[in-house]
Amino acid sequence: MQSLGAVDASGTSSSSEIHLKRGSSTLQHSEGRLLIGESLQEPGDWEIKDVVCPLFSASLVCVTDSLGIFWLWQEVVTVPANQTFLMPEGMSFEEAAAFLVNYITAYMILFDFGNLRPNQSVLIHMAAGGVGTAAIQLCKTVENVTIFGTASASKHDSLRESGVTHPIDYRTMDYVEEVRKISPKGVNIVLDPLGGSDTSKAFNLLKPMGKLITYGVANLLTGQRKNLMAMAKTWWNQFSINALQLLHHNKAVCGYHLGYMDEESDLIAGVVAKLVSLYNQGKIKPKIDSVWPFEQVSSLEQSSLGLYMLSVPPLSVGGRCHEADAGEEEYWESCPSS
Amino acid sequence: MQSLGAVDASGTSSSSEIHLKRGSSTLQHSEGRLLIGESLQEPGDWEIKDVVCPLFSASLVCVTDSLGIFWLWQEVVTVPANQTFLMPEGMSFEEAAAFLVNYITAYMILFDFGNLRPNQSVLIHMAAGGVGTAAIQLCKTVENVTIFGTASASKHDSLRESGVTHPIDYRTMDYVEEVRKISPKGVNIVLDPLGGSDTSKAFNLLKPMGKLITYGVANLLTGQRKNLMAMAKTWWNQFSINALQLLHHNKAVCGYHLGYMDEESDLIAGVVAKLVSLYNQGKIKPKIDSVWPFEQVSSLEQSSLGLYMLSVPPLSVGGRCHEADAGEEEYWESCPSS
Repeated sequence: MQSLGAVDASGTSSSSEIHLKRGSSTLQHSEGRLLIGESLQEPGDWEIKDVVCPLFSASLVCVTDSLGIFWLWQEVVTVPANQTFLMPEGMSFEEAAAFLVNYITAYMILFDFGNLRPNQSVLIHMAAGGVGTAAIQLCKTVENVTIFGTASASKHDSLRESGVTHPIDYRTMDYVEEVRKISPKGVNIVLDPLGGSDTSKAFNLLKPMGKLITYGVANLLTGQRKNLMAMAKTWWNQFSINALQLLHHNKAVCGYHLGYMDEESDLIAGVVAKLVSLYNQGKIKPKIDSVWPFEQVSSLEQSSLGLYMLSVPPLSVGGRCHEADAGEEEYWESCPSS
Repeated sequence: MQSLGAVDASGTSSSSEIHLKRGSSTLQHSEGRLLIGESLQEPGDWEIKDVVCPLFSASLVCVTDSLGIFWLWQEVVTVPANQTFLMPEGMSFEEAAAFLVNYITAYMILFDFGNLRPNQSVLIHMAAGGVGTAAIQLCKTVENVTIFGTASASKHDSLRESGVTHPIDYRTMDYVEEVRKISPKGVNIVLDPLGGSDTSKAFNLLKPMGKLITYGVANLLTGQRKNLMAMAKTWWNQFSINALQLLHHNKAVCGYHLGYMDEESDLIAGVVAKLVSLYNQGKIKPKIDSVWPFEQVSSLEQSSLGLYMLSVPPLSVGGRCHEADAGEEEYWESCPSS
């Protein structure tokens, strides 16, 4: 079994790691939800077979070697105990898989960097996506927030139902013009997962004391034309600013990437506690479009309302404890250290 | 009499301007405190002789013409009514002169951009200055905030009394090293009035989710060697960042300049209301080092604890209503429209 390493809150190597086995035998996801295994060195707060949700779900399907990164599907991994969280009562497997990364991201960019307060306005790009959906629900927990959300027209009815005040079809309209028509002075916060020239547009759309939070470069990776020229253009057009320019604008530019937050377990744990509380109050709820068996991914439709989930079959690859396919009891009994 | 023009909250020309006459006959300051005059076009909320404090006190001593800006001492000016605020009960003339610009700045950079919360840490440069003093007092209104403050050693005792947890003598020590000794991971917020290479140091000193707020370029204007070479160096070394770099840091960079906020009267009025409330609760109080007659400015000492105030004598320059030196009653009686 591969260990992915672990770092504790103070930045030194952690002695608290746990083995996790993927999902239930009936439904297994590429992201997230797992049954807990044994504690490798120190007993954690979890018991064997508690249901937990690991923070960096991608870790569950990747191992690294000295030459680079190989992406593999694994049955069992070791993760830092402080990067796992007990699933709330009543949360489904699919919700758990869609919960942590999307909602932690949306929460921290809206409430920590964005400092969202009542009566403010927010522009959310890719509003029907994972972080977009989470951000909309979190905006609705604050009084009288005006939400502009970009998405293709077929999703607008659903977005309005979710609480988006002004859905904008970015494919047929200039979203900057559309926002300015409704709010000539711009908005208080822009969440920018796009990068490239869209970051500059976002900056210009901010009101005084406005915050632009960039948390992705979707334009670099996708875009309507997937070619090197488009990627180079996105790179070339990326937003850049110096301190003197910023001084004259009364604006904030923030960068966010949860993947670089692995040493901040206390910070993340605080955010997850707040999110679980909001989930238990029924104020937030991950939106799953559909669950797809891995073999059928190629027939997956291009337009989703919420997240796609991948259901991955059990594997029989080499490694310690790989014998376990029959059932949970038998699995753990077959492990040398259990 | 010169009109300095006015802009209302919605960004159009304001019809609500007021005449202000400078200070009392016994004490007059280069910054701020004035007796109100008449309402030029629309009656405001103030009455003649209410005591108000105008936002942009510098406006009171400058007029512009088509060739540029001339700095003059004036007895009487016209300012936008929505940029004036009633002085709280019990506030002295000196406090009023030191109140608005410093405390609005400190409040907005700490609580709006900085999003300061309990148990966080802040680095305040020029901690004994106007904004620095205000920022320290405002930090103390939040539970368990650790304050690092740079100032020359002679001011450290006073800073400790004010609430600075760790005063640092920037002249004899490397403040970055000193902060790291105490807090290896850095701080949550840096208030940067310095610019140049200090902005880069500030950025590097931030913890994940940390906020750097630049609100001045003191290094460009002063510094220990006042020469063109030092200015060029500050300019050359100024902090610059692009969106992709920022994305990997989980940090915010914010620029603040109250002078560009003249259209944001609602925003400013909200901040002033909170500041007046804190003043009335005794939680904040401007710190005046000393009051200096204008003629004695040349003998002013170089090291202050709090603000210097300038006391300016009455003038007898040309213009409407310039006859007024004898007393307030006679002054207003001599004005054609009173």
